[in-house]
Amino acid sequence: MPEFLTLLPPNEALEKLASVISWKLDEEIISSDQALKRVTFTPVTAPHPLPAFSRSTVDGYALRAVDTFGASEGLPAYFRVAGEVPMGSASDFEVKSGQCVLIHTGGMLPEGADAVIMLEYTQTARPGEIEVLRPAAQAENVLIVGEDVKPGEEVIPAGKRLLPADIGGLMALGITDVSVCRQPRAAILSSGDEVVPPSSIPGPGQVRDINSYSLSALVADAGGIPVRYGILPDRADALQAAAEKALVECDLVIITAGSSASSRDLTAEVINRLGAPGVLVHGVNVRPGKPTILGVCRGKPVIGLPGNPVSALVIAGLFIPQVIDALGGVQKLPFRPSLLARLAINLPSESGREDWIPVHLDREPGGYRADPIFGKSNLIFSLARADGLARIPPDATGAAAGELIEVFLF
Amino acid sequence: MPEFLTLLPPNEALEKLASVISWKLDEEIISSDQALKRVTFTPVTAPHPLPAFSRSTVDGYALRAVDTFGASEGLPAYFRVAGEVPMGSASDFEVKSGQCVLIHTGGMLPEGADAVIMLEYTQTARPGEIEVLRPAAQAENVLIVGEDVKPGEEVIPAGKRLLPADIGGLMALGITDVSVCRQPRAAILSSGDEVVPPSSIPGPGQVRDINSYSLSALVADAGGIPVRYGILPDRADALQAAAEKALVECDLVIITAGSSASSRDLTAEVINRLGAPGVLVHGVNVRPGKPTILGVCRGKPVIGLPGNPVSALVIAGLFIPQVIDALGGVQKLPFRPSLLARLAINLPSESGREDWIPVHLDREPGGYRADPIFGKSNLIFSLARADGLARIPPDATGAAAGELIEVFLF
Repeated sequence: MPEFLTLLPPNEALEKLASVISWKLDEEIISSDQALKRVTFTPVTAPHPLPAFSRSTVDGYALRAVDTFGASEGLPAYFRVAGEVPMGSASDFEVKSGQCVLIHTGGMLPEGADAVIMLEYTQTARPGEIEVLRPAAQAENVLIVGEDVKPGEEVIPAGKRLLPADIGGLMALGITDVSVCRQPRAAILSSGDEVVPPSSIPGPGQVRDINSYSLSALVADAGGIPVRYGILPDRADALQAAAEKALVECDLVIITAGSSASSRDLTAEVINRLGAPGVLVHGVNVRPGKPTILGVCRGKPVIGLPGNPVSALVIAGLFIPQVIDALGGVQKLPFRPSLLARLAINLPSESGREDWIPVHLDREPGGYRADPIFGKSNLIFSLARADGLARIPPDATGAAAGELIEVFLF
Repeated sequence: MPEFLTLLPPNEALEKLASVISWKLDEEIISSDQALKRVTFTPVTAPHPLPAFSRSTVDGYALRAVDTFGASEGLPAYFRVAGEVPMGSASDFEVKSGQCVLIHTGGMLPEGADAVIMLEYTQTARPGEIEVLRPAAQAENVLIVGEDVKPGEEVIPAGKRLLPADIGGLMALGITDVSVCRQPRAAILSSGDEVVPPSSIPGPGQVRDINSYSLSALVADAGGIPVRYGILPDRADALQAAAEKALVECDLVIITAGSSASSRDLTAEVINRLGAPGVLVHGVNVRPGKPTILGVCRGKPVIGLPGNPVSALVIAGLFIPQVIDALGGVQKLPFRPSLLARLAINLPSESGREDWIPVHLDREPGGYRADPIFGKSNLIFSLARADGLARIPPDATGAAAGELIEVFLF
């Protein structure tokens, strides 16, 4: 049965979803020192140039480049040392022909000077006088005003997730408050008649709720705010009512189905009743996680995940961070780094389907070794014990022992 | 000048530092749902098996495997459907020979049954009776008690940074509070007579403090708590007093030097006076960041970073997360994922030295393209505009246009 022909590959499923999301998050002004990993709402432009004054990039002597013309070890140029540039303030003199001033890295270039000769290329001739042993070019070892940033220049685009260097850049420009997107609130609904809260003692046939918490952690890590709506029975009316409330109160709704076939169908029905266009993708060509549902209701993304905790978390890792990025207006697609590891054993896979296999990594001479973690159980600790997921691409029919495979770390 | 022979490569410098750190963080009990990325203090052991009851992994019929012996499409075995296993509770009957019960994925295996035959391999013979079209092996499609986790088994070791799957695993076992290391407090001291707070208008020759904030962000991202000690003048007494206070109040001290030569020497002196053994590594064979200082005083790590914001942040990225991990007792060395990108231009490098070059990444057919971001400025926005750092290993004399290089994302 070529069942995979009817299922979308994960990246196409994601594109289809992203193209239909129309819900936009609003702006929030926060302190820049709290803005790590938040997403810019508007572009940031420079209120002034950087550097704001011409400054030396080395320790040396500030001088007029033209005075060093022809200088060499055999025939040095002589300069009178007229003083020292203080750090953190302007010099109060002008460098004249034949003069130089001692300057430190970051020091402000004094009036009259247009270059800095490094200490290494000078030597003291007599007190108050130096020899310069090679010529300096104009602007040599000098950062001129605006060389890094020009006034009015866009320094950070809208829709960028801010990193430590961005925080530093904002501070350099005196931008101590920054406009960012509100963090998306992600509703998490667990369904299942057999599911009880982690704090309770499960009776016969009952299991504790894993998905609400593992998915909350994943949402928080991706920059969202998880909002748990508790455990719902496998009944259409109860699930529908909770999903309605969640859709109003949150920016994204995640439903993990009960594990029985009937409750899986329930999720699709609930999403379709929640608002147009409803279910966009029902079934993704990936293992684990085939019964995934992607939908959009009233502009907001609604995602139905399998009930199995491993499948739910693997699929959430493929879709949720990207959906949170899309909601925040992140412009650049995130790059997903990986590492190449030598597969320890043969790994069969169905051609045409993307497989994600939990693996344990070890260092070995020259690289890494990946041991797949199996177990028909497919239970949560098979994932907790893994370092990452190996991807077996859909055009492969598996991977052989010794082959290099791509591993995406958690 | 083979100056690199006297400098330690970054990984050796880090090992030397880690081997001398003796300061240990104490334990903290927190709610498991708040434990993402925290480090376990003690191993977590399972209070009971998982699964806690034998359960079905498919939708099908629970039966006695022996009754299906020899069943085939041509000669099916007949079973009377004695009922349905309710989700979330035990069945109140025992499966006898020739009987079966409808069971859903995750349902509790009833008394008497030892296998589940998938729906696909059955068909209805008449109301209340099914045909089974192939034999089922014992325990087929059944998770037996303890198959994932045995009682008393160590499920999470001490010194592990908790990920979403771990949070899920804790919940599965009903462990709603978890023992973790206190988060390390990292003191950040900026020195420089020319440095002023971001909120002020710099006068001539002054620049705003970048390092305190970019390093705070990096510390927070690595799991530490940044504590800023403000901007200090390039004077030994002031820096020493602040460093003393910081060493007492925090678990890790980071000093970014003023940019002049004299203030760089100051940092080493301050660290040596702070406590034994003092400076362990002075100078690392890496660009940017050669003047890095690694020390340990009274068991706690003390790190001196270059004053240049780009150098400071690049070096901090190489050392600070690892030092924070070491303080927390993280057992497993973190794996650093990267991606391979085609270098857009030739990149010269000095053999024997590790170079880290900010690059901009673009997708191109078949992979990625890396454009180095230059500028003699070496100022903060050259880093903010980059997607990651390309590593030119010390045994290379550079990389040629078109070559695949390793890029580590921010």
